[in-house]
Amino acid sequence: MRRKTFARMNCSIARALDLVGEWWTMLIMREAFLGTRRFHDFQQNLGIARNILSARLKKLVARGILERIAAPDGGRRLEYRLTDKGRDFFPVLMALMQWGDRWVAGSDREPVRVVDRESGREIAEISVVSGDGRPLGPSDVMMVPGPGAGAATRARLSTRGKQEESAAGVEQKEG
Amino acid sequence: MRRKTFARMNCSIARALDLVGEWWTMLIMREAFLGTRRFHDFQQNLGIARNILSARLKKLVARGILERIAAPDGGRRLEYRLTDKGRDFFPVLMALMQWGDRWVAGSDREPVRVVDRESGREIAEISVVSGDGRPLGPSDVMMVPGPGAGAATRARLSTRGKQEESAAGVEQKEG
Repeated sequence: MRRKTFARMNCSIARALDLVGEWWTMLIMREAFLGTRRFHDFQQNLGIARNILSARLKKLVARGILERIAAPDGGRRLEYRLTDKGRDFFPVLMALMQWGDRWVAGSDREPVRVVDRESGREIAEISVVSGDGRPLGPSDVMMVPGPGAGAATRARLSTRGKQEESAAGVEQKEG
Repeated sequence: MRRKTFARMNCSIARALDLVGEWWTMLIMREAFLGTRRFHDFQQNLGIARNILSARLKKLVARGILERIAAPDGGRRLEYRLTDKGRDFFPVLMALMQWGDRWVAGSDREPVRVVDRESGREIAEISVVSGDGRPLGPSDVMMVPGPGAGAATRARLSTRGKQEESAAGVEQKEG
């Protein structure tokens, strides 16, 4: 089945997912963050079929998220390494991990802890905050057209006041 | 093609993706955060096939991310609403959006801006920080076994010092 591409949607979430949203892709990126570089190691650590791994790595390179570099042993073997674009994905994976810790693993059953090398203490919870550091929930924010908004985005976001209010209202009632 | 489940991997990223990593699922969640509640509106706003939307919504309800509630008009129609578990996914979507803004849309071409209702100012960049607020990159952290680590996780993380050092070293050299 060919899947619909999200690349032409004018939404950065959709376009990000078009690059990294395929099954396995974010786990391959997790491995790269853990220091995995060789095809064989990706395969072993993930238990992924060679053909799928090969296709995913190829796309990640084409999309500028991984790069192929010569292995440091001076041989002809190539390794995969995160580019700046790939490394910049770090907060997304950490946020996803923390959500999985809270809602799937559950408190005191987290498989892995991420600690700051300097202090040895666990990293903070990743959260949405205002410019001056106040924590913000979904009902504390509003989506407004950005500089790259097209007519459809502008039309949609200008008619959303009512929905926003009602979503915020529900949350206030509950909380 | 049946896809391999990530549910039994002892990793919170894998287990989170097992719940929300299917094609379309995070975009359906984006819509829910935007205030969309009705099947018809999800379908219209996403341009998704009815059968796929129906399957995805069903799973999101089964996984406790959305809930079906009676529409406020008093009729028999049901609507979909984010649960606490679903709302807690907010930082992941915002981190993904900001990555897409930076690396796909590009500066000054962001389709949407997310602003704090109180100040009207854009939210801060989502980043990984230490307990005392220092920004942390991938090479500033270390993965250590958590309370839910099994033997495989412990073995793997105890042999990773070398890889970590080398990943950190590469990054320092570059920049």
